[in-house]
Amino acid sequence: MTLWAVEGLPEIQPGDDLAALIGDAVGDLQDGDILAITSKIVSKAEGRIVQAADREAAITAETVRVVATRGTTRIVENAWGQIMAAAGVDASNTADGTVLLLPENPDRSAYDLCLALRERFGIRLGVVITDTFGRPWREGQTDVALGAAGMRVLDDLRGTRDAAGHELHVTQPAVGDEIAAAADLVKGKANGTPVAVVRGLGHYVTDEIDSGGAQPLVRKADADMFRVGSTEAWDEGYRAGLQAADQGD
Amino acid sequence: MTLWAVEGLPEIQPGDDLAALIGDAVGDLQDGDILAITSKIVSKAEGRIVQAADREAAITAETVRVVATRGTTRIVENAWGQIMAAAGVDASNTADGTVLLLPENPDRSAYDLCLALRERFGIRLGVVITDTFGRPWREGQTDVALGAAGMRVLDDLRGTRDAAGHELHVTQPAVGDEIAAAADLVKGKANGTPVAVVRGLGHYVTDEIDSGGAQPLVRKADADMFRVGSTEAWDEGYRAGLQAADQGD
Repeated sequence: MTLWAVEGLPEIQPGDDLAALIGDAVGDLQDGDILAITSKIVSKAEGRIVQAADREAAITAETVRVVATRGTTRIVENAWGQIMAAAGVDASNTADGTVLLLPENPDRSAYDLCLALRERFGIRLGVVITDTFGRPWREGQTDVALGAAGMRVLDDLRGTRDAAGHELHVTQPAVGDEIAAAADLVKGKANGTPVAVVRGLGHYVTDEIDSGGAQPLVRKADADMFRVGSTEAWDEGYRAGLQAADQGD
Repeated sequence: MTLWAVEGLPEIQPGDDLAALIGDAVGDLQDGDILAITSKIVSKAEGRIVQAADREAAITAETVRVVATRGTTRIVENAWGQIMAAAGVDASNTADGTVLLLPENPDRSAYDLCLALRERFGIRLGVVITDTFGRPWREGQTDVALGAAGMRVLDDLRGTRDAAGHELHVTQPAVGDEIAAAADLVKGKANGTPVAVVRGLGHYVTDEIDSGGAQPLVRKADADMFRVGSTEAWDEGYRAGLQAADQGD
């Protein structure tokens, strides 16, 4: 597996044809290559820019459900079920006085980019749109797959056998997130190279462009043991306990 | 950045000199290379094998704190503050009737391997011991850094500036976890190649072997908004609410 950052991409502006600009900068591609594209430039091309004065309102507007709050930090769920800090509303790498929202529909953005790039190069390519998420329990952030097209994001090994002959019961490597994380190591945050090529994982690239997107990586509510912050859950239980006692037992 | 799996490593047995076996199989290394080593073979070499009949007892023994339970799934914190399912006690890729514990001290294991491999090859190498963790909110698993030596696992960008000149306030890429995730893409789970070489990230390799290990990736309790499962926190709050009402208000 080989990964490298794409050099020479111009500063992206609202209305830019991002697929064309990436296609111009990316050089030779091979069948099965995956392009990891930072969501920020997708948002910029889509004009997802609002005034910084509205940052808190923008976070609220992007929020479907508040997961946890502490101080000024808000962990929220957005329309696509993705859970992250501040709904991904970002003030870095934007013009002064503005903030950037996430792409309106990251899987659709990935689809459009994948379609345009496959048509241009005439080969099967995968696209993953990446964003930087914090995690419970662990310090630092890793890049994850916010949107995807033309590739699988979960590698379902359930039912296959390990080297000792045992069935791998629960193993579903989140390859979309692992590819996003790997690409972050070569893109970097500060050096203005928001696109990377990942070569050597063609077995995850699909014939179809519509491969289910990144949604298989989003856990459904009923399977999630950490739907709300510990403090929020405790407070809710406490109120329920008071109320239950109040109604007489 | 280039990554590849190391071929030709024999099945590891308790008491094996793992550094020597890896050194024999790995071929030419360059200064700044990082070796990603699956914890399973470290555990095997260290003889961390117990009878499968004791699996539940083994999980309990490895547990410092229960984070959340649902059905037979136990999410727990171990002695190193790492939070994972079943304390990492694993029945895959082991002989029938046995299960494998995690290495007793993953950072020490990484240190010993890094020291032996640096001495053998006479160059600066990094070592990351990887394990496969689930995550809240997201389906599938990613590999993370359980132990590390000779390398930094957090890339602290706080105070540096992005391409637009803004300070990157909170950005600390969890490069140890991202390297583990990237390596998983070439090691695979089912094909018996538990070691990968990661080339091109020499800027994270340190002169010192004792670089703080993987502990900087472990979030401290007071900074964590998801210390216990939502149900557990709710139940605890409910009991507190009942009790408060009981004591009269």
